[in-house]
Amino acid sequence: MRPSRREPDEMRPVTLDRGVVKYAEGSCFVKFGDTHVLCTATLEERLPPWLKGQGRGWVTAEYGMLPRATHERTRREASSGKQGGRTLEIQRLIGRSLRTIVDLPALGERQITVDCDVIQADGGTRTASITGAWVALSDCLAWMRQREMIKTNPLRDQVAAISCGIYNGTPVLDLDYAEDSAAQTDANFVMTGTGGIVEIQGTAEQKPFSEEELMQLLALARKGITRLVDLQKTAVG
Amino acid sequence: MRPSRREPDEMRPVTLDRGVVKYAEGSCFVKFGDTHVLCTATLEERLPPWLKGQGRGWVTAEYGMLPRATHERTRREASSGKQGGRTLEIQRLIGRSLRTIVDLPALGERQITVDCDVIQADGGTRTASITGAWVALSDCLAWMRQREMIKTNPLRDQVAAISCGIYNGTPVLDLDYAEDSAAQTDANFVMTGTGGIVEIQGTAEQKPFSEEELMQLLALARKGITRLVDLQKTAVG
Amino acid sequence: MRPSRREPDEMRPVTLDRGVVKYAEGSCFVKFGDTHVLCTATLEERLPPWLKGQGRGWVTAEYGMLPRATHERTRREASSGKQGGRTLEIQRLIGRSLRTIVDLPALGERQITVDCDVIQADGGTRTASITGAWVALSDCLAWMRQREMIKTNPLRDQVAAISCGIYNGTPVLDLDYAEDSAAQTDANFVMTGTGGIVEIQGTAEQKPFSEEELMQLLALARKGITRLVDLQKTAVG
Amino acid sequence: MRPSRREPDEMRPVTLDRGVVKYAEGSCFVKFGDTHVLCTATLEERLPPWLKGQGRGWVTAEYGMLPRATHERTRREASSGKQGGRTLEIQRLIGRSLRTIVDLPALGERQITVDCDVIQADGGTRTASITGAWVALSDCLAWMRQREMIKTNPLRDQVAAISCGIYNGTPVLDLDYAEDSAAQTDANFVMTGTGGIVEIQGTAEQKPFSEEELMQLLALARKGITRLVDLQKTAVG
Amino acid sequence: MRPSRREPDEMRPVTLDRGVVKYAEGSCFVKFGDTHVLCTATLEERLPPWLKGQGRGWVTAEYGMLPRATHERTRREASSGKQGGRTLEIQRLIGRSLRTIVDLPALGERQITVDCDVIQADGGTRTASITGAWVALSDCLAWMRQREMIKTNPLRDQVAAISCGIYNGTPVLDLDYAEDSAAQTDANFVMTGTGGIVEIQGTAEQKPFSEEELMQLLALARKGITRLVDLQKTAVG
Amino acid sequence: MRPSRREPDEMRPVTLDRGVVKYAEGSCFVKFGDTHVLCTATLEERLPPWLKGQGRGWVTAEYGMLPRATHERTRREASSGKQGGRTLEIQRLIGRSLRTIVDLPALGERQITVDCDVIQADGGTRTASITGAWVALSDCLAWMRQREMIKTNPLRDQVAAISCGIYNGTPVLDLDYAEDSAAQTDANFVMTGTGGIVEIQGTAEQKPFSEEELMQLLALARKGITRLVDLQKTAVG
Repeated sequence: MRPSRREPDEMRPVTLDRGVVKYAEGSCFVKFGDTHVLCTATLEERLPPWLKGQGRGWVTAEYGMLPRATHERTRREASSGKQGGRTLEIQRLIGRSLRTIVDLPALGERQITVDCDVIQADGGTRTASITGAWVALSDCLAWMRQREMIKTNPLRDQVAAISCGIYNGTPVLDLDYAEDSAAQTDANFVMTGTGGIVEIQGTAEQKPFSEEELMQLLALARKGITRLVDLQKTAVG
Repeated sequence: MRPSRREPDEMRPVTLDRGVVKYAEGSCFVKFGDTHVLCTATLEERLPPWLKGQGRGWVTAEYGMLPRATHERTRREASSGKQGGRTLEIQRLIGRSLRTIVDLPALGERQITVDCDVIQADGGTRTASITGAWVALSDCLAWMRQREMIKTNPLRDQVAAISCGIYNGTPVLDLDYAEDSAAQTDANFVMTGTGGIVEIQGTAEQKPFSEEELMQLLALARKGITRLVDLQKTAVG
Repeated sequence: MRPSRREPDEMRPVTLDRGVVKYAEGSCFVKFGDTHVLCTATLEERLPPWLKGQGRGWVTAEYGMLPRATHERTRREASSGKQGGRTLEIQRLIGRSLRTIVDLPALGERQITVDCDVIQADGGTRTASITGAWVALSDCLAWMRQREMIKTNPLRDQVAAISCGIYNGTPVLDLDYAEDSAAQTDANFVMTGTGGIVEIQGTAEQKPFSEEELMQLLALARKGITRLVDLQKTAVG
Repeated sequence: MRPSRREPDEMRPVTLDRGVVKYAEGSCFVKFGDTHVLCTATLEERLPPWLKGQGRGWVTAEYGMLPRATHERTRREASSGKQGGRTLEIQRLIGRSLRTIVDLPALGERQITVDCDVIQADGGTRTASITGAWVALSDCLAWMRQREMIKTNPLRDQVAAISCGIYNGTPVLDLDYAEDSAAQTDANFVMTGTGGIVEIQGTAEQKPFSEEELMQLLALARKGITRLVDLQKTAVG
Repeated sequence: MRPSRREPDEMRPVTLDRGVVKYAEGSCFVKFGDTHVLCTATLEERLPPWLKGQGRGWVTAEYGMLPRATHERTRREASSGKQGGRTLEIQRLIGRSLRTIVDLPALGERQITVDCDVIQADGGTRTASITGAWVALSDCLAWMRQREMIKTNPLRDQVAAISCGIYNGTPVLDLDYAEDSAAQTDANFVMTGTGGIVEIQGTAEQKPFSEEELMQLLALARKGITRLVDLQKTAVG
Repeated sequence: MRPSRREPDEMRPVTLDRGVVKYAEGSCFVKFGDTHVLCTATLEERLPPWLKGQGRGWVTAEYGMLPRATHERTRREASSGKQGGRTLEIQRLIGRSLRTIVDLPALGERQITVDCDVIQADGGTRTASITGAWVALSDCLAWMRQREMIKTNPLRDQVAAISCGIYNGTPVLDLDYAEDSAAQTDANFVMTGTGGIVEIQGTAEQKPFSEEELMQLLALARKGITRLVDLQKTAVG
């Protein structure tokens, strides 16, 4: 039995609230159970230097965690003077995932930055971030269309993410922190609304896993992402 | 007339919500109108090296702002590699204000860190932070008393803060961002529940101000802080 | 009785020596008793990027302290890799104070940087810095007028600063380090030559102070600043 | 046809040279075609603070690239003042992969650091690093056994890594830089000598990939890793 | 007798291998006994800002050391966040030495950066770096002439370097690490192919040295550099 | 003729004023003409970690320059976040020079830090620093002997430094900035009171120099240092 008393294929309650901050062109407060992330999308009429003059835009992401989002207080990265490896790895993943479903030339020479700030962490912050970031990005693009800044919709698909793992020998969906800490294998899946795989990150925490186990995790993930994609549709619909 | 259409001595709606995050020993989500700050208090059984062995505790604060708390996106301090002068100045002020009303020897050799993270900024983030930080600190100390970690209550008084300014020639209370940007003079007042002054920071933005004007601002501040102290009492009561 | 054996309203001997370094467009070596600060004003035909093309100049300040300006050696900020919160706070105050009395459009699109470097510290380094910085700035502007770089004098007024505090229950003027360390309340006042208040920073170090005490400190400060303004006039006269 | 004119399932020539530097307790110069990485293992009788007193050791990795390992010169990370996100991500992966096959308690309270420095880069530097790191680690452990520092062999298995990708619609093995830049999908696989999966990182560079494609890449990877594991055996044999 | 059992005027075996990396416009792997340095020359069509528009080029150098180039592992400078004083001192010396023998106007408005990365260190890394850097630079200039980027040869002379020292009372040539650690005096000499002195750095490690000893070291150095210059000629010849 | 109108072997006026700051255990304000450096010696009952428990002390130095010590304002190193290569190189040289004439075991397990801060720079700041640092160090050791902290005098000799150069074809002594900028060759000599050479740093700025020229510079330096050593004796006598 899972510490969360959930069924193996049962996700935590997920909510996606839009328009939660006043200034951002798009925003979403996403909850996967006790994991809470504020996602904001910022549109800027500028590009990183290496992208200028190529007739296409850019989507990037930054990730952060409030110091007391965690059980023990984590040192503020602004105070320690640099972003840690985990932070950089996660924000690279979020940015990459979003770019897969955006038509960058259709965006024009502009940049959208999606900030994902974890207010409370209980496992799965990167997957909640990607899922909520898509909603914030979608609202930002709608904001642009309303102002006729873009003609075609640069959003080609949805993108969402979920974690799976092997806990106590059983493949389970959407690990919380207690489950994640004790899982033999931990995997994050990023998929599109049409079921394509955007990113797989599978890691053996204790002992190697088999191809069969990978397939089981993938099946669970597909189920979870189908649900998340529906929730996204409802949220922006 | 003020841009906010408020009376000169009228504050924005203020709310103080406690227990808003799962892990912190004390927390408060404070709103001064559209200024929203999450305050969390963390208890740690350790001290900065220069304080060890002196038989007293320490209270300190850190301040941060989410990148899109502001109208234009602000660069993340974790990414720029250091906390700016404004951030350091504000967090020093919050820490100093809280220490004035805490009996540090009664705390024992422990440290409480209050994190004030601005989710949305519309002027007065430092005064909202101090006002909310007191609530988070109070809850943290209650948490310790429940566990019999301390015998006497180290909290000697309340502390709250409000800004005032001279806008268009008129002294007004609790400036929002539009008013703050255009004020001739801007002042922040930190006071205790019993009416003592803990800190005054008055700055002439355009032209110097007179002693009489200072007195008018102080009278307004006293009025506002009386109201905030009542709200704090209700919140923790 | 004060440790310095001075009367409550007695300042330390103050001297303002001009032209003390060879290269700066303006300079002043200011002494408030054993507190010694070298102030130099540098004129540059450039502006920070965010100020360009607005038809006005800028005045800014930087503050530093030699490692052995203090009783115990202080770590060199260049070696620790960043300026501390106290340094940033003081240099922001100096810059703000100077800008209040300068007609920035009259300066043209140029920047004046006033460096205040503490050679020896015995309390009141920020107030000595502001008082000496005005002299260095005044000489820099005179240097520009001699070269006909500016037509009108951008200097609208004088500005000087002094600290006051409540020591052993008595309001006293111009705290030295021994007095400052033991004061219940410490306040810095920045005022113009015509008596306007530019900045007040009052801090309760041990217990809150009252409105009446604030008024007493302000009266003392006014007395001290009248004296400093006279000394500035004599110095540049 | 691949730019490298290799068959879809054909790897580049791989060599693993041991004992290539004088001081390290274990070392390996690994070549995957034109990708050349120097791996050194360093044994130290110390642990990171958070691991002390737990009766087990630690294996960690650092990754770097010489400035002119790349076609265009890359800025030296020591000069830019921090390790980039890609560097941190890769060295976390190498460390994690090695720890999966080491019995940490059997190591005793010691740390082994494997440095992987890329001398020349032509795609696949992280997979070459892991493959060579295992050889360096194995030699370091042999060095310890010779000195009777450890009784049992902490090495539970082999570990090696290879990249695969979908190039021009075809799944191919061991991408070089030209192929990697143009691949639709890029995946890195880390597996043990006994065929267990340690890590999968699959990324859609242009369009999402399907479960079937993932399976094809996994089959190719398994073939490549079988070959690498044989080469490792021969090398340390 | 020297620890290395060499005669006082006997150098270690020196080799200079060219073209050792694929991408650099010039490269040289230099060995002075067990000291191994990889030197690469990179041509870039850009200049540091302060040199633009002056009709001449620039030659600069960077120096680094792999963590396990040394007997004990040295912390990676990219990880500690800055280059140490020794690194900066050495790379300034290499750059200065190379610029002495290059006709910078003949180079055009371009920059050549020579990276010297120590793979294994056994004393004399800076002298080996300079000697190898000249070969890499020479090849880079040849590469430019082949492409008719420059008309005249900017290389006016050769430059090479060697260390000498007083070991156990005897002046000796080309110190290895064991000798260097125990030498009373350590001196580095940089000279041109035509015998001119470019740089002398003589340091008394234990007790001061005399003018006569300096002359003896200089005579030894001259002998060593004559040999190095011949080896360079053979290498590029 | 030299720009300074001095004879080739004529130094600038040199003064060494002791006891110029209130707190330091030893201090000296040294002037070489318009080059002014404040040297302070700080005694601390602590050692760098790598020196603990070896029964000997340590002498080290730090070097800094006020922003407007130079003709154009130089950016503050505390603000740019790191000490430059030139700073690190000079402070390593000062520390090394002082350690040569101190009996470190006689010092006990203590550290003396000599800070050399350039108030005004007109060439030769490193040589003025060394010469003044010796006076500050000497006073610090006298301070210790007065308090009977040490039994024997750890000062084995004097140490002083001077620059020489070839200006317009003529070897000249003690270059000022105008001469230094135009010199073909620039050399710094550090010598003891008894005439031993502690450090030579000779650099060809434009074209290589000959052995004969080196000898001429050395002879000039010896003359200058004889004079500096006399001035030091008078100063501390």
